[in-house]
Amino acid sequence: MNDNTPLFLRALQGLPVDRPPVWIMRQAGRYLPDFMTLKNKYDFFTRCQTPELATEITLMPIKQIGLDAAIIFSDILVIPQAMGVNVEMKNNFGPFIEFPVRKKSDVLGLNTSNVEEKLDYVFRAVKMTKKELPEHIPLIGFAGSPWTILCYMVQGSGSKTFDIAKSFCFENPELAHMLLEKITHITIEYLKKKIEAGVDAVQIFDSWGGVLSHTDYNIFSFPYIKKINDALKALKPIIIYPKGCWHAINSYSKIGASGLGIDWSCSARNARYLSGNNITLQGNMDPSRLFSPKNELIKLTKEMLNEFGNQKYIANLGHGILPNTPVDNVKVFVDTIKSFSND
Amino acid sequence: MNDNTPLFLRALQGLPVDRPPVWIMRQAGRYLPDFMTLKNKYDFFTRCQTPELATEITLMPIKQIGLDAAIIFSDILVIPQAMGVNVEMKNNFGPFIEFPVRKKSDVLGLNTSNVEEKLDYVFRAVKMTKKELPEHIPLIGFAGSPWTILCYMVQGSGSKTFDIAKSFCFENPELAHMLLEKITHITIEYLKKKIEAGVDAVQIFDSWGGVLSHTDYNIFSFPYIKKINDALKALKPIIIYPKGCWHAINSYSKIGASGLGIDWSCSARNARYLSGNNITLQGNMDPSRLFSPKNELIKLTKEMLNEFGNQKYIANLGHGILPNTPVDNVKVFVDTIKSFSND
Repeated sequence: MNDNTPLFLRALQGLPVDRPPVWIMRQAGRYLPDFMTLKNKYDFFTRCQTPELATEITLMPIKQIGLDAAIIFSDILVIPQAMGVNVEMKNNFGPFIEFPVRKKSDVLGLNTSNVEEKLDYVFRAVKMTKKELPEHIPLIGFAGSPWTILCYMVQGSGSKTFDIAKSFCFENPELAHMLLEKITHITIEYLKKKIEAGVDAVQIFDSWGGVLSHTDYNIFSFPYIKKINDALKALKPIIIYPKGCWHAINSYSKIGASGLGIDWSCSARNARYLSGNNITLQGNMDPSRLFSPKNELIKLTKEMLNEFGNQKYIANLGHGILPNTPVDNVKVFVDTIKSFSND
Repeated sequence: MNDNTPLFLRALQGLPVDRPPVWIMRQAGRYLPDFMTLKNKYDFFTRCQTPELATEITLMPIKQIGLDAAIIFSDILVIPQAMGVNVEMKNNFGPFIEFPVRKKSDVLGLNTSNVEEKLDYVFRAVKMTKKELPEHIPLIGFAGSPWTILCYMVQGSGSKTFDIAKSFCFENPELAHMLLEKITHITIEYLKKKIEAGVDAVQIFDSWGGVLSHTDYNIFSFPYIKKINDALKALKPIIIYPKGCWHAINSYSKIGASGLGIDWSCSARNARYLSGNNITLQGNMDPSRLFSPKNELIKLTKEMLNEFGNQKYIANLGHGILPNTPVDNVKVFVDTIKSFSND
């Protein structure tokens, strides 16, 4: 990489930087008035499946907030859809699958072929966005972890505990592994095509890894994320975000991924200790903290920056930004990071 | 304490035992057919508020499963009710508060007096249960942590993130602390009366401590639990269960509580390390693991026992037992513990 390497990619590669880059999980949406206007006009999957809309939404926070990386507007559940599962996005409810995966015949019936064709709209959105983005703003592509995708496919909706998904795995581990293999296979194909289409880095969201015990995590989630990372790490930098899985930080620091997302339950100090400072860390402000009064928010953001330090670090929230977050506070958060120097 | 001290209390006091005692969070209900019969006959708060029913339900798992401690059938939300908040328990939804606490006037309007009268039905249930219980089976009383009670009172229902409750605290910390003080005050009064009525130990459920960051936990949850513990620890042994708060294990091991509940995200080894082996640990099987085939469940239970060791340990799940858990598997779990010896 030469000196023109964008800040975000420099930090992700562990190269020296003057300040940490910043982006925000779910930055493209929810809290932005222009996004809400589009949301009221087009349903969720129309926004995902129309490259012009996905591009417009992806660029919105870059223009309006000034972040250091863009993330393509899409959803982790395009993968079950591409496998033949009908996923609806219900208002005030979230994802809903009328016929969840529960039996062997359901798993056998899942189709993992023709990703290129079935998710063509994503690849077109990536290409279109790359043309519009300034050169110094990299584009992040993403997918859910196989475990997290299984959670939705089996449970059939969001859940606090994903008890049905877990019981499915514990009652019939062989079938669970068959399903996880299928999801892993299609996810690798999908992310390869996304990289070919132009994304500069990839993030794997293991949003529900935290519902598993530390031992079950090593059976049902870690090995499949590792498999995806192994297949892709030579192509582009990979960020792994295992929410609630502080117990896996050490393992993830050793598999050749470039970045590791940290949630707010883990301190910077613990995360650095557990990862042996082997990997760029990303995070970890509690999204609810963006509702704090501005002075408090500035203080907390500076504390976060001082604790992580400005090298091998990408500033972010510890999970997706919340709806109704005041836009001014998002700007305060981002501007505090952009003017930070702890030298 | 003399040699007649029941096994559960011996373990909780750190006295030598031949095997670890076992009880199960939410053991009185859900998975037991006789409980489901009562559930179909009487609504939730009728069951809580009728001492005869609460006693019958509390004794059910002692007679049918053979656990080493009973826990009084009740709910953490009797506290907001006693403060004048109308809490409904909706089928297939959980707790619902039509008028949640959001403004200063709401907080000021909460009434923390007359606990003895308002929660008289709990104290009568405790007395009645104590009369029926065999002498070697202690009775556990409980309350929610002030933070967890605030979560419900402000959010108005269950939630994955308790974002409204958190924003309330972060936008107006003074008001949040005023509310937490009020809850702490009434909770101490309530637990004192429960101890007077006859409970042998008290568990504080901080079921939603895990939604806070490690720093915010020390602002909004830990100090209030410590205050309750300080007020009661000379009276009866206290168990603190801070779900998802591995970062607080070390602090809790130093405040003179008797027991600390561990969830399944934290290994026994980590929990022993973080607590400096200063305190009896309780936990931590994933409730979903009770859906495993029997041989697997026996193997996992033995692993848990070997990892925690048989001293200063109370076997339990890492959270409440799930509805639909096979009763036979509950027996397998309990019997494996009761026949355990790692000497």
